[in-house]
Amino acid sequence: MSDTIATLDPDVTVQDNEALDDDYVLTAGFVEKVVDAADDGDGPRLRALLDGLHPADVADLMGFLTSEHRTVVVLGLSPDLLGETLPELDDGIREEVLERLPAGALAEALQELDSDDAAAVVEDLEDDQRERVLSAMPLVDRAAIENSLGYAEDTAGRLMQREVMAAPQFWTVGDTIDHVRAQHEELPELFFDIYVVDPSNKPVGGIPISWLLRAGRDIRLSDLMEPVNVIAVDQDQEEVAYIFEKYHLISAPVVDAAGRLVGQITVDDIVNIIQEENREDILRLAGVSDESRGAGVLGVVRSRIPWLIVNLGTAVFASLVIGQFQTEIETLVALAVLMPVVASIGGNAGTQALTVAVRSLAARELTSANAMRILTREIMVGLTNGVTIAVLMAAIAGVWFGLPKLSLTIGLAVLINLVAASLAGTLIPIILDRLDRDPAVASPVFVTWITDTVGFFSFLGLAGLILL
Amino acid sequence: MSDTIATLDPDVTVQDNEALDDDYVLTAGFVEKVVDAADDGDGPRLRALLDGLHPADVADLMGFLTSEHRTVVVLGLSPDLLGETLPELDDGIREEVLERLPAGALAEALQELDSDDAAAVVEDLEDDQRERVLSAMPLVDRAAIENSLGYAEDTAGRLMQREVMAAPQFWTVGDTIDHVRAQHEELPELFFDIYVVDPSNKPVGGIPISWLLRAGRDIRLSDLMEPVNVIAVDQDQEEVAYIFEKYHLISAPVVDAAGRLVGQITVDDIVNIIQEENREDILRLAGVSDESRGAGVLGVVRSRIPWLIVNLGTAVFASLVIGQFQTEIETLVALAVLMPVVASIGGNAGTQALTVAVRSLAARELTSANAMRILTREIMVGLTNGVTIAVLMAAIAGVWFGLPKLSLTIGLAVLINLVAASLAGTLIPIILDRLDRDPAVASPVFVTWITDTVGFFSFLGLAGLILL
Repeated sequence: MSDTIATLDPDVTVQDNEALDDDYVLTAGFVEKVVDAADDGDGPRLRALLDGLHPADVADLMGFLTSEHRTVVVLGLSPDLLGETLPELDDGIREEVLERLPAGALAEALQELDSDDAAAVVEDLEDDQRERVLSAMPLVDRAAIENSLGYAEDTAGRLMQREVMAAPQFWTVGDTIDHVRAQHEELPELFFDIYVVDPSNKPVGGIPISWLLRAGRDIRLSDLMEPVNVIAVDQDQEEVAYIFEKYHLISAPVVDAAGRLVGQITVDDIVNIIQEENREDILRLAGVSDESRGAGVLGVVRSRIPWLIVNLGTAVFASLVIGQFQTEIETLVALAVLMPVVASIGGNAGTQALTVAVRSLAARELTSANAMRILTREIMVGLTNGVTIAVLMAAIAGVWFGLPKLSLTIGLAVLINLVAASLAGTLIPIILDRLDRDPAVASPVFVTWITDTVGFFSFLGLAGLILL
Repeated sequence: MSDTIATLDPDVTVQDNEALDDDYVLTAGFVEKVVDAADDGDGPRLRALLDGLHPADVADLMGFLTSEHRTVVVLGLSPDLLGETLPELDDGIREEVLERLPAGALAEALQELDSDDAAAVVEDLEDDQRERVLSAMPLVDRAAIENSLGYAEDTAGRLMQREVMAAPQFWTVGDTIDHVRAQHEELPELFFDIYVVDPSNKPVGGIPISWLLRAGRDIRLSDLMEPVNVIAVDQDQEEVAYIFEKYHLISAPVVDAAGRLVGQITVDDIVNIIQEENREDILRLAGVSDESRGAGVLGVVRSRIPWLIVNLGTAVFASLVIGQFQTEIETLVALAVLMPVVASIGGNAGTQALTVAVRSLAARELTSANAMRILTREIMVGLTNGVTIAVLMAAIAGVWFGLPKLSLTIGLAVLINLVAASLAGTLIPIILDRLDRDPAVASPVFVTWITDTVGFFSFLGLAGLILL
């Protein structure tokens, strides 16, 4: 907010056609110019290209560059711009950049930031570098960062900024505005709500500042305030994001164990968390663990191969199931031709049920209040889809092989596997969630394991009973 | 914001332990009480249970109820609460609720809302009901809604509220505060920035209201303002969300084709859009089209069966490929036992590459500036993972069947399929994106089609060449 980019100011060339296209994306031409300047070691040209950019665009640019070019660019940034860019960087790229920055330059850049943003950067540093950077900073900034790092990772304490605008109940609107004018050095640069506190500094209400602006100077805060949602300092950030989203909050006061006001969280930090949680969920469902955008080949391999190895295990298990039916396959090779269909359809139906369940759990739309109803519905869906697809597949097999008993076998197997898929896809994430595990991580393995096994076993087993 | 729930006000029982648990989720016990009251037709008890709830919690409650109970509950809500609940409801549930509400009750409830929220509700109405509801409303409210509906769906025009706080450049801080106090009836209930406009009503800057509060009364707005990001009224909402997220905006002015200020968009609407877009992406990748939370069995079947039928097609295609190799399978039934492994591993690697590519495209991190580099990286990842998994699988096949040539065959097939998976998983979403199609919709079909086909064909084909 404090540094929105310059669309309208004629003196600033941030958004000229060179850097950003109509979609606010850096153009290939601009990225190339930066690369050229970096290759030529042309410092002044590089600085001219970078200086007009918004920190968010510098961070974007870094994602488009190779590791070598990133180092050149980062060393060419002014302390201001470097400081504001650091919190915008992807985790992987930030770690790389931090390793290459001299402690002095980093200390200088961090002083430009709010305590929460500075702490988020410092937490990524190696122990010895952290010590060097902190000791190069003024004591007051250092204390603020260390205080923030005293809270556990991913909690409200880490997210919050310590600067807040608080006022006692008995103040009037006029008192409050006068206080803000006089004390603005100590206040946050931006704030959206005033928190009304009692004598022990506990929040008793909140006032959006547009209400303050609108009210007469004589009105008392206690007559203007509305109830507020308070956030506990040790609350998990995902929980905080849920509260912000559900109740459409712009900012909220953070309190310590005794209920005293210690800071505030604003919605712009929450938007990042929502995106990060969504990104994690979507990648985890696909079997990709933490993969950062700037990762090299080995980083990507590391993020993906664990799940491939687990999948190799479940696939070999499915092969062992098939291995039990080699006689049947030798007798009727059509079984080998058709069996992947049963497993494939089951896997897809399982993924559908699973994804809906994982998303409903994340959105807290699937709870103990409706779990039974959802499960019943999923079983009905499995039966309905199962009958439909079974009839279709039986018809296709009939046209192809002309064996009615083979059609009956594959139809039944498809039906059984689609019901199994519905059950597994819904129950497994619910159970993992009850066990306090992230349902997005392990569910896909279990579900495909079950649909593969049930698919091959039911088809080949039924073939032994019905056909042969 | 204007109606944050009552955690601290002793007079309001919203968040008492009965309704919400520690995670801000409705308890099963509370839902049961509502169901009981609805079953008993006990209006007063129902109203007592509902009246303390935040609209977001009423909307949550609706998601936990059956269709019959929803009707009873909705008819028991006060006009205020009904109005504020309507925009919070899931689309499917809202449509159902709107069908069952009398036009008069609906018209009354809509008058409680901002024009953007009211328009979002009215747009869901059938033509004849829309006419009845609009004609039951005061002219001025009706005009605001019709104006909003004049903009295309999913554009900034639909999202924005028409009420904004604008001021000419030559005003001082004092002029502005006096104006807000005098004119507060016409201003939005909540606002976060003041837009500074030129004589033709074009925004030339913005001022966060905390800056206004902090500045002396004599300071001119032109000295205080900073450049703002303007949003075009016909801009797509996804684009708007991207700009808010990237530049950490709290609100932004909306302008018409001539650049004149016509409204504003605030971040709370954006959070909903971000969540909605993420939800769509995650479900589409799993082959689930628009599935609403309150949908019955048939609604869910409709959202899932199209993809299952397409998947049946690709699976039958894969079977046709296998059918070409029946002689090979009859000669060595171990081929039938092992072949699903090759397809399964390929499918999973393809899903990984695909999901990363779809997400990167959505986040605009994969553009023409780095497409070639990302593709090269993915091929290297496919090769690395391919060699690793191929060696593992060859070893397993060796121990199991003791045929070195079978191990060689399956190893090569795995390697080929993992490279194909990387290529398909990355290229297909890029191509769909260039063709202006949503890469999340069709990509999974294409990718599994390719990995199934390449998997079976390479394994069975190589078996014919190497083994038999």
